[in-house]
Amino acid sequence: MATGRLVEVYLDLLSQPCRAVHILLTCTKIPHRVRTMALRKGEHRTLDFTKLNPMQKVPVMVDDGFVLTESDAILKYLATKYDVPEHWYPRQPERRARVDEYTAWHHTNTRPHAAKVFILEVLLPAQSGSLVDEARLNRALSDLDDTLDKLESMFLRRQPFLCGDDITVADLLAACELTQPLGGGRDVLKERPQLQRWRSRVQSAVGEAFDKAHGVLYALRDRRRARL
Amino acid sequence: MATGRLVEVYLDLLSQPCRAVHILLTCTKIPHRVRTMALRKGEHRTLDFTKLNPMQKVPVMVDDGFVLTESDAILKYLATKYDVPEHWYPRQPERRARVDEYTAWHHTNTRPHAAKVFILEVLLPAQSGSLVDEARLNRALSDLDDTLDKLESMFLRRQPFLCGDDITVADLLAACELTQPLGGGRDVLKERPQLQRWRSRVQSAVGEAFDKAHGVLYALRDRRRARL
Repeated sequence: MATGRLVEVYLDLLSQPCRAVHILLTCTKIPHRVRTMALRKGEHRTLDFTKLNPMQKVPVMVDDGFVLTESDAILKYLATKYDVPEHWYPRQPERRARVDEYTAWHHTNTRPHAAKVFILEVLLPAQSGSLVDEARLNRALSDLDDTLDKLESMFLRRQPFLCGDDITVADLLAACELTQPLGGGRDVLKERPQLQRWRSRVQSAVGEAFDKAHGVLYALRDRRRARL
Repeated sequence: MATGRLVEVYLDLLSQPCRAVHILLTCTKIPHRVRTMALRKGEHRTLDFTKLNPMQKVPVMVDDGFVLTESDAILKYLATKYDVPEHWYPRQPERRARVDEYTAWHHTNTRPHAAKVFILEVLLPAQSGSLVDEARLNRALSDLDDTLDKLESMFLRRQPFLCGDDITVADLLAACELTQPLGGGRDVLKERPQLQRWRSRVQSAVGEAFDKAHGVLYALRDRRRARL
């Protein structure tokens, strides 16, 4: 690795997958520079950013000229390329497969279901000025409940973290999704002691990197609370 | 590896991700045994199968007692654990990251968009006995068009396969999704010469494994055609 070389990441910390990347970089101390992209200001639609990522999405990582999108791929690349503790993305094929299994499942379960609650409760009302659509919100909460049931009964059934005895990139992706509704003042794990204990384990494992990544989301929650 | 040891896979070849797993196993000659699961007969909801995979989904792989779900994870595990040509899932971090990037993208683009067309055109009418919902079908085709545009303009822009110069597990996942609407007689690549050339390259690279995996789908198409 060249001296002084930095991984560059384009992030909006209000985006769940961006926070997962931020936490991994912070707590593994990979030398990096964050380029903040405010999605609400449309900074992902500028010409320069579109050249970097035609999908106009964050996160984007640039490592010595190598441009990579998709948080899932970025986390696995960083854990492979840099000298980080192996537990983040184990090399042993069966243990690694467990991480790949969760992350594949994540894309069509934890991610859309938790995000939808935040979109319906915070984003759409803020953009349109209208009230929360309670019927749609209840359906979203019910889908999320089903996902939370599966996280408890399958992934966390016999182990402290989603993919085994130690924290992996899968836990980061999941934890950052499940905190998102907090931006609207909703703790979706409120009546889920098993998942709460898991979240505490994740927070302990990553230390202050967790709150650092979530500062912007907490501030959003506090502003909304003050307005009520 | 113990002599005579076989990878067991539970597959329904009418399911796109199952076909991707089947093709990799066939053309890499990994010793395996297929356990056919007919989803239409509800065989994924039996007690025995639910014990194996509480999610009640196929594909499922069992390798020497190690049970794994999610096609994405199964393909990567097989390519890592067994002695197959490296191009399927390259070890070099940047090349591997390209495969992880596509597969992450796949879950919320190619997979749902191509599947939706098949569901609306074949599955729902067969289950309900009603006509195809043309308005929903048109929306699904428009979403799929957007995904096909991105496959052409981003993933295939400067290279013959989705993730580089040679075929990877990503191409298998994508090709099996994009053939699914054929079951309803629709070739979604009909006006897409660039994607057609890519599909031909995939078919050439895997040889007869492609048609072998797609036999059930072709038969469905032919039965429907005969009825018209």
